[in-house]
Amino acid sequence: MIARKLCALGSHRVLEPAGALPQAARKLDATPAAHANEILCDVEALNIDSASFRQIVAANAGDAARVAAHVLALVEERGKHHNPVTGSGGMFVGRVREIGEELAAHCDLRVGDRIASLVSLTLTPLRIDAIERIDMATGRIWIRGTAILFETGLYATLPPDFPDDVSLAVLDVAGAPAQVRRLVAPGQTVAILGADGKSGMLACAQARERAGTSGRVVGFGPDATTPGARLLLDEGYVDAFVELDARDALAVLAEIPTVLPELADVTINCVNVAGTELSSILLTKDEGTVYFFSMSTSFTAAALGAEGVGKDVTMIVGNGYAKGHAETALATLRNRPPLMRYFMQRYGSES
Amino acid sequence: MIARKLCALGSHRVLEPAGALPQAARKLDATPAAHANEILCDVEALNIDSASFRQIVAANAGDAARVAAHVLALVEERGKHHNPVTGSGGMFVGRVREIGEELAAHCDLRVGDRIASLVSLTLTPLRIDAIERIDMATGRIWIRGTAILFETGLYATLPPDFPDDVSLAVLDVAGAPAQVRRLVAPGQTVAILGADGKSGMLACAQARERAGTSGRVVGFGPDATTPGARLLLDEGYVDAFVELDARDALAVLAEIPTVLPELADVTINCVNVAGTELSSILLTKDEGTVYFFSMSTSFTAAALGAEGVGKDVTMIVGNGYAKGHAETALATLRNRPPLMRYFMQRYGSES
Repeated sequence: MIARKLCALGSHRVLEPAGALPQAARKLDATPAAHANEILCDVEALNIDSASFRQIVAANAGDAARVAAHVLALVEERGKHHNPVTGSGGMFVGRVREIGEELAAHCDLRVGDRIASLVSLTLTPLRIDAIERIDMATGRIWIRGTAILFETGLYATLPPDFPDDVSLAVLDVAGAPAQVRRLVAPGQTVAILGADGKSGMLACAQARERAGTSGRVVGFGPDATTPGARLLLDEGYVDAFVELDARDALAVLAEIPTVLPELADVTINCVNVAGTELSSILLTKDEGTVYFFSMSTSFTAAALGAEGVGKDVTMIVGNGYAKGHAETALATLRNRPPLMRYFMQRYGSES
Repeated sequence: MIARKLCALGSHRVLEPAGALPQAARKLDATPAAHANEILCDVEALNIDSASFRQIVAANAGDAARVAAHVLALVEERGKHHNPVTGSGGMFVGRVREIGEELAAHCDLRVGDRIASLVSLTLTPLRIDAIERIDMATGRIWIRGTAILFETGLYATLPPDFPDDVSLAVLDVAGAPAQVRRLVAPGQTVAILGADGKSGMLACAQARERAGTSGRVVGFGPDATTPGARLLLDEGYVDAFVELDARDALAVLAEIPTVLPELADVTINCVNVAGTELSSILLTKDEGTVYFFSMSTSFTAAALGAEGVGKDVTMIVGNGYAKGHAETALATLRNRPPLMRYFMQRYGSES
């Protein structure tokens, strides 16, 4: 490897363009050896971000072999899984192989520990030697390969009471339940778009707990008969589940007097398709808050959409990180056996 | 015109795709006649959004005639000035020609009033009959043409004590000073990127007033010798002006210990170039707030950038609208004669 000044944010791994940070870089050096301030991991599986996986699957007509070739080529080209169309990535699970000498003293990890990365694959140097299997339903890809974690990179050791793939599924969206806990106050009305998806269900559960019995939680999704939607209703995580296509703002507008006449104090957008910004804004009270957790969000559509309808709402960019977010996300399942069973069934098939 | 059910949000003006709202639409019907819930205006000038104008100028090698042809073709094609590259638009100033019968009774306006639109041109039906002149420095375009305001469309009557073009320049970024007043508290440290631009200067002035003498306001920009940067320092709207290219996150990281060791409680991004999300995040305290007013902001770069460096910050999508924002923006100048003189000089040349 070329000797370079080591950077806490990993800029020493950037090949192109010079002077960029890893997330902005076109190409990273994924050489599998730990610098003094890095952790080298053997990767077992990738959890591709939902927006990114959906795009890759569509671009390859749903064919698993073509998806595999696409991902291999992308990672070979960029030294990271950074989907240039969606701008998003995902995370990995793996085993610590090597800890750089500067980190060894003040790092909780030991060689052999199994961890999940909590930073995006869009900035993680990644090398894939082989793709072993792809779960087309969940966007999980089992591989042989290696990844590098930087000094500032976040990770979670995989909890002993969870199957790995359930941990991975939950940790991938760990920001959502933690942010919902902060945003929602007792007695509030909360609207959750994409409520029966992975992040949506965790968000509903936390919104229910925070809003309390005096509050109201309404889930939205294109199909009210999914197992997720039914669970949300059965367990009372939502008071109602409304079947709506959030891309159709006019339809949402027409339904509001029936389904959410008071409008939401807090709207959480957890969808994985583009074009739902305006529906989120229309569902929200003046002076309310819209939290965009979806990576499909368009900044300008949100900014100009709110202005265009004269709605004075605070719109927040979903931050994948919040203090204690991994613990909060795992506890969201641990404290709710029905939700745990659902995640086990849906994401735990390989355990 | 085709008879259609009139919609408060203007969907009856959408030609393609059916069922879309005006901002999401590919093409609007800009026929110059007011429906019952519309206001028809004779347009005098467009103020093109800074990100959009910059892109159009670059795409036409800085040639004014080519820029004019580009804008004409774009508006002819879409029935609105909606730049497909940047997703942004701008606003217009004009004179009320016709008020729909449903609005006439409860509308402050009269035929002949001169107004500025406070909704984006990305959702405003617009027809250009001729382009008369383009100010390549400010992105203002004098035209003959017409525009439609919807029932929910925001506008401001042009204040008598301001030259029109100064009003237009200020109202175009009216969201910024109003949002800064809400976000900044006494004693806080505030970082403002793109501080010597139009929205940046209004943001600095309001941040100074709100943060007070116990707070600290630091402006950032690529050139500390601009008239704007000098004014900010001379008038004490900023405590320091730091010369930095915000696209270079590594350079920003290296400068932080010198220029902002305490980091900012609130960072306001007012730049008009892409790639400054990470610098904004790096300049901000853990648990601080980043407000992205720039239309060049990438949602995913912000979301994944914060996660990538493990920074627990609240990131807000700049909303062009806030209650009373036009009054706040105009008062920002009215109460600060040096800032008023600067805006008069820079944007008031046609008065």
